[in-house]
Amino acid sequence: MSSIINFRRGNAYETLHFPEDAPTHECGIFGMWAPQRDVAQETFFALVALQHRGQESAGIAAAAEDGLHLYRATGLVGDVFTPEIIEHLYGHAAIGHVRYSTTEDRAGDALNAQPLMIRYQHGELALSFNGSIVNAAALRRHLESLGSIFQSSLDCEVFAHLIARSSATILEDALQEAVAQVQGGYAIIFLTADRLIALRDPHGIRPLTLGMLGGHYLVSSESCAFDTLGGSYLREVAPGEMVTISAQGLQSRQGLTPAVPPSLCAFEHIYFARPDSDIEGVNTHFMRKRLGAALVQEAHLEVDVISGVPDSSISAAIGYAEASGVPFEMALIKNRYLGRTFIKPTQEQRELAVKLKLNPVRKLVEGKRVLLVDDSIVRGTTMRYIIHLLREVGATEVHVRITSPPYRYPCYFGIDTSARGDLIASNRSVEEIREAIEADSLYYLDIETITRLMGNEGLSLCLACFNGNYPVSVPGSH
Amino acid sequence: MSSIINFRRGNAYETLHFPEDAPTHECGIFGMWAPQRDVAQETFFALVALQHRGQESAGIAAAAEDGLHLYRATGLVGDVFTPEIIEHLYGHAAIGHVRYSTTEDRAGDALNAQPLMIRYQHGELALSFNGSIVNAAALRRHLESLGSIFQSSLDCEVFAHLIARSSATILEDALQEAVAQVQGGYAIIFLTADRLIALRDPHGIRPLTLGMLGGHYLVSSESCAFDTLGGSYLREVAPGEMVTISAQGLQSRQGLTPAVPPSLCAFEHIYFARPDSDIEGVNTHFMRKRLGAALVQEAHLEVDVISGVPDSSISAAIGYAEASGVPFEMALIKNRYLGRTFIKPTQEQRELAVKLKLNPVRKLVEGKRVLLVDDSIVRGTTMRYIIHLLREVGATEVHVRITSPPYRYPCYFGIDTSARGDLIASNRSVEEIREAIEADSLYYLDIETITRLMGNEGLSLCLACFNGNYPVSVPGSH
Amino acid sequence: MSSIINFRRGNAYETLHFPEDAPTHECGIFGMWAPQRDVAQETFFALVALQHRGQESAGIAAAAEDGLHLYRATGLVGDVFTPEIIEHLYGHAAIGHVRYSTTEDRAGDALNAQPLMIRYQHGELALSFNGSIVNAAALRRHLESLGSIFQSSLDCEVFAHLIARSSATILEDALQEAVAQVQGGYAIIFLTADRLIALRDPHGIRPLTLGMLGGHYLVSSESCAFDTLGGSYLREVAPGEMVTISAQGLQSRQGLTPAVPPSLCAFEHIYFARPDSDIEGVNTHFMRKRLGAALVQEAHLEVDVISGVPDSSISAAIGYAEASGVPFEMALIKNRYLGRTFIKPTQEQRELAVKLKLNPVRKLVEGKRVLLVDDSIVRGTTMRYIIHLLREVGATEVHVRITSPPYRYPCYFGIDTSARGDLIASNRSVEEIREAIEADSLYYLDIETITRLMGNEGLSLCLACFNGNYPVSVPGSH
Amino acid sequence: MSSIINFRRGNAYETLHFPEDAPTHECGIFGMWAPQRDVAQETFFALVALQHRGQESAGIAAAAEDGLHLYRATGLVGDVFTPEIIEHLYGHAAIGHVRYSTTEDRAGDALNAQPLMIRYQHGELALSFNGSIVNAAALRRHLESLGSIFQSSLDCEVFAHLIARSSATILEDALQEAVAQVQGGYAIIFLTADRLIALRDPHGIRPLTLGMLGGHYLVSSESCAFDTLGGSYLREVAPGEMVTISAQGLQSRQGLTPAVPPSLCAFEHIYFARPDSDIEGVNTHFMRKRLGAALVQEAHLEVDVISGVPDSSISAAIGYAEASGVPFEMALIKNRYLGRTFIKPTQEQRELAVKLKLNPVRKLVEGKRVLLVDDSIVRGTTMRYIIHLLREVGATEVHVRITSPPYRYPCYFGIDTSARGDLIASNRSVEEIREAIEADSLYYLDIETITRLMGNEGLSLCLACFNGNYPVSVPGSH
Repeated sequence: MSSIINFRRGNAYETLHFPEDAPTHECGIFGMWAPQRDVAQETFFALVALQHRGQESAGIAAAAEDGLHLYRATGLVGDVFTPEIIEHLYGHAAIGHVRYSTTEDRAGDALNAQPLMIRYQHGELALSFNGSIVNAAALRRHLESLGSIFQSSLDCEVFAHLIARSSATILEDALQEAVAQVQGGYAIIFLTADRLIALRDPHGIRPLTLGMLGGHYLVSSESCAFDTLGGSYLREVAPGEMVTISAQGLQSRQGLTPAVPPSLCAFEHIYFARPDSDIEGVNTHFMRKRLGAALVQEAHLEVDVISGVPDSSISAAIGYAEASGVPFEMALIKNRYLGRTFIKPTQEQRELAVKLKLNPVRKLVEGKRVLLVDDSIVRGTTMRYIIHLLREVGATEVHVRITSPPYRYPCYFGIDTSARGDLIASNRSVEEIREAIEADSLYYLDIETITRLMGNEGLSLCLACFNGNYPVSVPGSH
Repeated sequence: MSSIINFRRGNAYETLHFPEDAPTHECGIFGMWAPQRDVAQETFFALVALQHRGQESAGIAAAAEDGLHLYRATGLVGDVFTPEIIEHLYGHAAIGHVRYSTTEDRAGDALNAQPLMIRYQHGELALSFNGSIVNAAALRRHLESLGSIFQSSLDCEVFAHLIARSSATILEDALQEAVAQVQGGYAIIFLTADRLIALRDPHGIRPLTLGMLGGHYLVSSESCAFDTLGGSYLREVAPGEMVTISAQGLQSRQGLTPAVPPSLCAFEHIYFARPDSDIEGVNTHFMRKRLGAALVQEAHLEVDVISGVPDSSISAAIGYAEASGVPFEMALIKNRYLGRTFIKPTQEQRELAVKLKLNPVRKLVEGKRVLLVDDSIVRGTTMRYIIHLLREVGATEVHVRITSPPYRYPCYFGIDTSARGDLIASNRSVEEIREAIEADSLYYLDIETITRLMGNEGLSLCLACFNGNYPVSVPGSH
Repeated sequence: MSSIINFRRGNAYETLHFPEDAPTHECGIFGMWAPQRDVAQETFFALVALQHRGQESAGIAAAAEDGLHLYRATGLVGDVFTPEIIEHLYGHAAIGHVRYSTTEDRAGDALNAQPLMIRYQHGELALSFNGSIVNAAALRRHLESLGSIFQSSLDCEVFAHLIARSSATILEDALQEAVAQVQGGYAIIFLTADRLIALRDPHGIRPLTLGMLGGHYLVSSESCAFDTLGGSYLREVAPGEMVTISAQGLQSRQGLTPAVPPSLCAFEHIYFARPDSDIEGVNTHFMRKRLGAALVQEAHLEVDVISGVPDSSISAAIGYAEASGVPFEMALIKNRYLGRTFIKPTQEQRELAVKLKLNPVRKLVEGKRVLLVDDSIVRGTTMRYIIHLLREVGATEVHVRITSPPYRYPCYFGIDTSARGDLIASNRSVEEIREAIEADSLYYLDIETITRLMGNEGLSLCLACFNGNYPVSVPGSH
Repeated sequence: MSSIINFRRGNAYETLHFPEDAPTHECGIFGMWAPQRDVAQETFFALVALQHRGQESAGIAAAAEDGLHLYRATGLVGDVFTPEIIEHLYGHAAIGHVRYSTTEDRAGDALNAQPLMIRYQHGELALSFNGSIVNAAALRRHLESLGSIFQSSLDCEVFAHLIARSSATILEDALQEAVAQVQGGYAIIFLTADRLIALRDPHGIRPLTLGMLGGHYLVSSESCAFDTLGGSYLREVAPGEMVTISAQGLQSRQGLTPAVPPSLCAFEHIYFARPDSDIEGVNTHFMRKRLGAALVQEAHLEVDVISGVPDSSISAAIGYAEASGVPFEMALIKNRYLGRTFIKPTQEQRELAVKLKLNPVRKLVEGKRVLLVDDSIVRGTTMRYIIHLLREVGATEVHVRITSPPYRYPCYFGIDTSARGDLIASNRSVEEIREAIEADSLYYLDIETITRLMGNEGLSLCLACFNGNYPVSVPGSH
């Protein structure tokens, strides 16, 4: 049992991170209040269902009569927990977390695993957080200047300190004060001995959903966790709503702050969520098929083979194929077992990493015009190499269709896309991007198309990564 | 560093084995002779490419001037090896192995990981084996009665003892004697200080392929490993051929035993191989599409949704969709991150395990007639539960189409399908199977269709699991 | 990498804790400021030398130009650190810590390993602490009521919070404020990027020594660490002194609080320190021999064999033997390899645990009158069983001589001796203790003898565990 | 779970092996047949008692109705076994082993941990071995030429192969054949489903003792294991005797080979055994005291301080002190917690390693004439450095007295003392050794003294390491 802080990283090898040419996932959160059930065991299964939202660390905190019990560690949910650990996490309620680091330093940073747990003047408190607090640094400096000591580099620890310093005696009041000071996009679940509180930022940038299981309440980033447990979807936690679940049932506070228009992160539907999840009541697989179909209307082209980049773009490619009448194909086969495979950090082995993960089916591609559907292009290096691979096995043309607009502006609300300079679209025209990735043609969906298609389903979006209009003003971003 | 032999298993939990309703994978083998290259590093990557053939253990043996060096352990390739271990496995040639246990006892049986390595009167010898020796028990009893001591329960250890007892001074001669005594279906690669020998049983039941990389020879169960390394396909090792690779280049001995008709395992194309591999020169994805298309011709039905059971049946479902004109869909979403997830061995949690792995997209299925394409039904329990899941989310009809004939007879050549009594088709008609899995209709491809479609591509097959005609007579199987 | 908090303990087995019938050890601390040296490597060796002061966890924090780096974990120094970890702990200064839990719950409490490290408004700060703060709970409640969040259950974390809340801009000033509020017995070393500060409580209850190595300053609980590194003893840190070591050399602040008489813990010489260490300039082996010799003067008896209880009482037994003229013997042989040996928590196996650790030499004891010298009797259970063992192998008489007065009052300054009720001497006369342990005779040294012998060497002692006169008033102790 | 074979060792660090200037320990073996008891748990405790005979690996094999179960791993007994493992090792009989490698390559060689277990034509067989077979290489070559495959590099595996190849149907008969072919010095315990067989070589070079516990038989390298379990000493297994313990009680075969004079290894009493053990009925502590006393008679000198080198020479130093009237002292304090401490393999850190382990008490030594008693000098490097350390802290003279004759010839019967060239005495006179270790005087006991003192107790010795007269002729040793 050990902890390492602040280590330099100087290894001659690196673990092969899946080179998705897409924004990296962020976090998944889950909570349940179910005195008659095995809450840790079910939270464990829910986290397995949410694993696509974060593979770096996992944790569960459970509330029992003798206090809160916590276990968290780096690794996949199935590796982190053992039956013995789950048995120790008994109780009447639990919250869980899966995490993909949103910061630079990912080196086994066990201290930044969640749930975060504190003991403060009113007892014990655990929290699971998804998103980002844009004024976290300023709040932290202010709290430190008052003498607070932070135990992690997590944004969400400012919530803990604001609560700990509040003079309010009711937790919900302290939280309401905190929400007024915190700016950002987040969904958060708190657990104390006697209640579970779910909270979503006023803009509703990150999703949070309520479900039911055998008469008990569930809270989850995505509805697929409810399906896994055999539960059912109830409703969304509304932007700016605080929901308390306790022995007294469910209570809600709304309008914690002055009303603002909702701004759900557009990438939840485009890329993050599992296809079988509903986000704000809209099924993700269907929405992706619609985005794919829209590409046919806007920029169809006669080709021989239509393929998605597995796995995230399969839904969109099916939509494109269905709308175009050209059969869907699997031109790229994905290796499902990469795990902790390591490579040397050389250009040669980085290219080999793409091949280890994605191998084209030569007989499908040889002598053919190929149209690739993908959800986004972030740095462009992987896409360029995939196109290279396809040409190597004989593709005569490779066309690229993207189900989102160019990703031009960094996200400050929980998605890890390095600095703006790394974004291939930040200072390039579509034609320049096409040249950079060496495609025969390239087309992105218009912002208007996204807005219209999702708007038809009642979604009001944050599109800041496409247009730079951040729903919350970000310190130092201009 | 530890070893456990013969432990009882009495845990209250079990690790969630992927409940594919299909034969379980078996083994993947690889070898390379490449004095100028980093053979262990490249064998490591090749094993990652072959990981789908076995996830229980992995190992590499390398030949250097100071002898053979070996590392093997239970776990995925990426977990078993570290950069440090790979650096210790230096040399001019290497062989590797990934394994899925073909025996009952899988409990951390590190002694049965491969490559197997021995020191005998003529030096050191390592071997990687895929397949089964049907007279292994009799050979073992005979060898033990002569005073031999076995160190593992691996079939292939009899090869080691036959070689060790041979009076032949040339290894190939000793091997030729051994092949004459051993009956079964296998591909095997031997490594000594000065040569690498690849050998395939006279019936050619298990595949083995030769490739090239920068002027050096490669041997692999499947060609996808060549693609990953940037190498190229050369030819198959012929049934009954022994290929020696050494500083003198490649030499071949054929006709080790009287000629018999080739009998490639039909399931290599139906289920085992990666879609991007060529087996006996035939691409697997294409062959699966053709099997799917054949189902349309033989038993088409008007439905609303066509879906495969991910991942192995996607190719066949695409073929079915293309031939039928009904669009392909992803009605079942697979969780890619199950890893070592554990469940309690209760009926309830076994059903939950299917849900953790496969979740239907309600909006695709609700009120629809669904046609599921799958490659085989072994025990039928998973298929029954998938059908149950689809009905739960509103499917009005669920029809099942299988791209192989009923799996009626146990395999004795390297595929792990428990006893005959566990096979749902062993003593049931197709109609009885349909009732058992609660499908609205069920259709299997005819043996004749398989024989014709694969025969058109020049393949001569082992179909014993469908018709009981074993190419090699199996002691005690009747 | 994982952390567990607050787990219940319900195992059917327990690890065999060395059943010394003596107060358990507490902590060892070390620091060095040596820009030209490999500070982590040398701190590692120093901690190995101090390992007798705590075997539960170990840690090192190093200060380099890019900040403080920390590693700490449960286990022995040699198990916790690897060459790779030590290489990561580069820098110009380092502090280390070995710990024996002073609290009830020892179950893998990695969060309570030290050094403690915080980031606060003025940067990073690490600290290593030995001792106890008697008003820690009150200070903690007060700091929590002001909104502070504690990350551990360590007493010394109040120092961190007092510093973090101080308005002083110079660390030494903030520390001086903290010392004024903190009551207890402690030695503490702080490390920041630009200085190392060593501090001892005004009573000087816990020892702290300054040394030199190649022109650089060292600080250590005991001088044996200096010997190990090839360094030399300089002087004690005085009670109530704060020493700052930095690029500017050594600076001292004395008289941080109004002067009080020094009160070195008497058990440092009686039991804790290594025999080769000097504590307050007095060699421990010599002092123990003198205590043993005093027993001869006060209560000699004609016996056949004189033996100590290994290892801590060997020095005293040598002193007794030398003074009495009866040869010293090793009647009890200690097993040096108990390690993590586990036993069932039954009476039978607890007795077996004593036998695993100490085995009498039958031929030395059979038919003999044995006099056992030991340093203390805490609960008396082990001593009773040792006497039982000696009689079993034929001792005709067993007499016990203790080099300290009866241990009657709990220690609140860093020694872990459960509640007062567990102390065999808390409510028993010497005769009643003799009966309880079934000795033929029992004699304890007088407090006056201890005071006189140690006073002759210039030592002024805390004798609270013998007479209840605590140098610092302890909340709730009366 | 992993195995490494034949790895080069090139690490920049090495684990600090205790730099005893003495022969390294070898192995301890234990067995019990006790249907009503928890045999694995008691064997575990017995191995803890025998841990001083080998710290590199530990293992237990247990015989139950469902076959033999084995667990073995590298590490200390208390680290290797967990309660869970012990529970799996149920049964009516068990054998155990602790091992110190006798070969060059000690790099985590888990394959060479014992007990060794085989499955052969007559079932399962486990064995624990202490000693050496001098014609092992020849026997192995012969067996390999007949086609045998060895799984380890252990000498004792030839026993397994000889048994496996025997035409005898009774195990004792097969063993008797084997004993006739095997030359060396060894004690060995076999376990099968229905019997436990203990065997000692005809010369009786290695010890083996019979004990009783609750009516059941025990076998052990040393009697201290009986004491630990609460059992009692019965008798020695005689040289050349084979004892079978089974449901039929104890049966003995003697005179397996023509009678030869017994030759117990002299170093068992001088160095290996625990002081509380009886070897051939003679207590080791007493024998060592007598050797120490003999030094006084032969070479007394007026000095101020007499000290042993802890721990092995304490008994002898006590004997010297008692005989000379000069009080015994502890001039060197040993660190009890070195564990896996690592050092860089430089001269500087190798010297530091001695200091980490042994620190002189300056005040005992300063200005004094010191006489050090030790049991042997093998390479002399540690002794030279200890003398250096003593002079550094002010010893005016350092005299060395050794309780054995010069160690001139390598041992071929189970003691690991590198090649003859490494032995400081192999080609130096006593005066030259004195110069090399820089002592003021040096005296070794005469061979005659050893022979007389031990002969008085009925012991007939192997003194080959002193005089080169090997009881068994050793191939290639001349």
